[in-house]
Amino acid sequence: MSSHSLDPIFNPRAVAVVGVSSNPNPTGMGSFYNSLLEAGFAETGGLYPVNPKVDEINGARCYPSLMDTPDPVDHVISQVPARFVPELVDQCVRKKVRSIHFFTAGFSETGDARMADIERQMITKLRDAGIRAIGPNCMGLYVPGSRLAFMAGFPMDAGNVFLLSQSGANAGEVVRELTTRGVRFSKVVSYGNGADLRAHDFLDYAAADEESTVVTAYIEGVQEGRKFFEALQRCARVKPVIVLKGGRTASGSQAAHSHTGSLAGSIEIFDAVCRQTGALRAETMEELQDLTVALSTNVHRARGRGVALFAGGGGGFAVLSADAIDRAGLTVPQMPQSAVDEMRAYIPVAGSSVNNPIDAFPPPEHMDDMLRLVATATGMDMVFMSPMVARSRWQNPNNTVKDEQGPVTVEPETESIATIAARQMRQLEDDTETPVIGVMRGGGMARMMGIESDDFFQAAYREGIGAFPSVARAAHTIAQLIEWREYRQGLPEIP
Amino acid sequence: MSSHSLDPIFNPRAVAVVGVSSNPNPTGMGSFYNSLLEAGFAETGGLYPVNPKVDEINGARCYPSLMDTPDPVDHVISQVPARFVPELVDQCVRKKVRSIHFFTAGFSETGDARMADIERQMITKLRDAGIRAIGPNCMGLYVPGSRLAFMAGFPMDAGNVFLLSQSGANAGEVVRELTTRGVRFSKVVSYGNGADLRAHDFLDYAAADEESTVVTAYIEGVQEGRKFFEALQRCARVKPVIVLKGGRTASGSQAAHSHTGSLAGSIEIFDAVCRQTGALRAETMEELQDLTVALSTNVHRARGRGVALFAGGGGGFAVLSADAIDRAGLTVPQMPQSAVDEMRAYIPVAGSSVNNPIDAFPPPEHMDDMLRLVATATGMDMVFMSPMVARSRWQNPNNTVKDEQGPVTVEPETESIATIAARQMRQLEDDTETPVIGVMRGGGMARMMGIESDDFFQAAYREGIGAFPSVARAAHTIAQLIEWREYRQGLPEIP
Repeated sequence: MSSHSLDPIFNPRAVAVVGVSSNPNPTGMGSFYNSLLEAGFAETGGLYPVNPKVDEINGARCYPSLMDTPDPVDHVISQVPARFVPELVDQCVRKKVRSIHFFTAGFSETGDARMADIERQMITKLRDAGIRAIGPNCMGLYVPGSRLAFMAGFPMDAGNVFLLSQSGANAGEVVRELTTRGVRFSKVVSYGNGADLRAHDFLDYAAADEESTVVTAYIEGVQEGRKFFEALQRCARVKPVIVLKGGRTASGSQAAHSHTGSLAGSIEIFDAVCRQTGALRAETMEELQDLTVALSTNVHRARGRGVALFAGGGGGFAVLSADAIDRAGLTVPQMPQSAVDEMRAYIPVAGSSVNNPIDAFPPPEHMDDMLRLVATATGMDMVFMSPMVARSRWQNPNNTVKDEQGPVTVEPETESIATIAARQMRQLEDDTETPVIGVMRGGGMARMMGIESDDFFQAAYREGIGAFPSVARAAHTIAQLIEWREYRQGLPEIP
Repeated sequence: MSSHSLDPIFNPRAVAVVGVSSNPNPTGMGSFYNSLLEAGFAETGGLYPVNPKVDEINGARCYPSLMDTPDPVDHVISQVPARFVPELVDQCVRKKVRSIHFFTAGFSETGDARMADIERQMITKLRDAGIRAIGPNCMGLYVPGSRLAFMAGFPMDAGNVFLLSQSGANAGEVVRELTTRGVRFSKVVSYGNGADLRAHDFLDYAAADEESTVVTAYIEGVQEGRKFFEALQRCARVKPVIVLKGGRTASGSQAAHSHTGSLAGSIEIFDAVCRQTGALRAETMEELQDLTVALSTNVHRARGRGVALFAGGGGGFAVLSADAIDRAGLTVPQMPQSAVDEMRAYIPVAGSSVNNPIDAFPPPEHMDDMLRLVATATGMDMVFMSPMVARSRWQNPNNTVKDEQGPVTVEPETESIATIAARQMRQLEDDTETPVIGVMRGGGMARMMGIESDDFFQAAYREGIGAFPSVARAAHTIAQLIEWREYRQGLPEIP
């Protein structure tokens, strides 16, 4: 375990939720008390709801003020309106808490000079008392290992990804979306205006945190450029760091100013900082998510640009997939003639292609031969495979006309096709040492064949296989990783 | 009704499926007989399965050969292997059918000169007898009005979109995906190698077909450049035509050659042809689908580039959405100060933005005021709206802290939130004459709020509201339409 001054913040023993909603089943954001209950925090730590207007909440005692809660409380979540915050800050000092998370909004981000002043004063008072603050205007902490969660439904098994995000809604979106892709998190912090703790503090923490092997950040504004640069550099030397800067454009930058009070910085400078520090720049939420999957799985092992594509049925799909791969900056190399000849021994000509992309369903007994042959053919740096290809081991949906034999049907047993497909991809990679990347195809085709996207994504992730919602996204992600590795040259190699 | 020489092909009275599968429940492609049964063709027309090895199929008599089927048969679907095709062609001539669709593959697309010769000979023989051919190597016809379908599960209500596609799998994908978006089709034809009927024939038909108001094409290779150019020009003068060329890149062009035997043409020439004829070029399947939705709904009425964005909660989402709009070539104009002041009378400052993007949930009684104010504010050429905004009419998930009042909750009655949201968008557009565009947001946020994407897409389409899976895709589509309208200047105005 690391030993870092912020450790207690990520691992509090007792939490008070001040200004807890009087609604026992609040929806949307701000349901911190219920989220902590669901996460099981109360089973190992103290959890104290505070609201002077409520005596009881879901059967638990509700305290009239922070001062009335049992000792010790080390972390406070503030849901009170902004005008009650100064009094709460005084109580936190007297209560000797270690940290406070201000969900409360309405401070510097409003552009109101008086509220910005109040924000500064309260942070000064807290710092003087040795209390660190997260926010204001944010969702705070999701730490599965500490049973902390800021929204309902977050998984409570811990993973390897550290996420820092100024925006609470974006943090929630990343968690939910990446959870459906199989990813799990070590620590997530939404820090809003960043009046006290900010990006560089969390980057330093993430760099030191052994549980976190990939760091992902959503940032709207950099508050102390030099400190940010140095912390990003320290972190990016030891683990992959993905950074999405919200407000890259004129319209977005104006929106970011309204949101977290962030000032527009030059996006060229920001991009140069990423490049110099060796961080990986994402431009959209999709890129951030895809890169996080890629760096947590086998995808980052892809070295060259040559893709062998098993399209999974449909020549037109193969054509558009090849276009997408080419457009992303990878290639679909011609299959060597020797490999073509070998495949033609068991794959009929009509309605199939054994060139690359491969659009062919061989007889099940030749499936493994074909996969290995393609994965080891000259020029194929990686294999893209639809789970529908794996399906053909059990059921041969050969599009071509067969008059001598009916389709071979061997039903899979208790596991889903997605699970078996993912394992088959893992085996192919282990056998051939060629990275195998999972790709879903649109059009409901996979579902029609009994394969659910999320099921496949999660099964693939468990096998260490990176999987993507489309060929275009897989190819674009890998091209970004290759470019990243090129500009990292000279920096320490990271896995 | 138009009167066109191809009319009988799209409206056959009796169909024989020759080489029908002996499997009573075939999966995947090639289940033409079952798809026609499901589509109800047998209820109005003659439907005759042909296979010498089968006496009966799903309780119906199966004929040993085409010659044994009752007269007349005007359309034949060939599922026999390529080597039996010459004999089937002779039978078609004797049987005096009007058209034959060759699902059968294994001809010119294989690159085998002998098979290409056979393909030419059979087409010559058919033409001499006045029989038109679709294919080989394709899925043929889906015409809801004539109860024709080439795959199971296609909707049997007719719509306005004519789709021509060399690829059968891509045709199926477009139909399935656009069906979930609410779109319906007039006629769909997958024509594969295009040995006889090809793009220009279908474009001429689509131009004349009154049922079709939007034409969408997936093409891998143009076989007769001049005829294609002229037919595209004729069609694009009278209705919007969207063209996706598969094989735009080196990798894709190689794949297209393997797929439909298409030869690489210069993509620059193809793009210039689109521009000169006034057709709309799509580069990906997503673009093709989004443009089809846009041209079948209110989206094409958007004239300027200024977007008023109701983000539906979450400042970080608003920031990234503004970035996406800007990147696409549209803008997110500042809200005029007078409108800001008016909204601030009923929207609290904390946790909200009434600038643009608008991230604010006013009290329900002010919702309509706010929507109208924004839609008519200076610079707002269109409104982007998440269905979650409509939801706030019933349930106010205000993120800000409220100590005086609980959340206002008024449950909708029997209709889904998505349906009500779509109607509200329609009303806003009718009241303000500003196009309202529906946008979903990722991250499972909408689903968490009880809104399913497909439900919303279909409800929006019924109201004539274009809806998109993301802000980025909506903005990109509209920017493409604006560019298209610019280069169409001088050509006849189409709706």
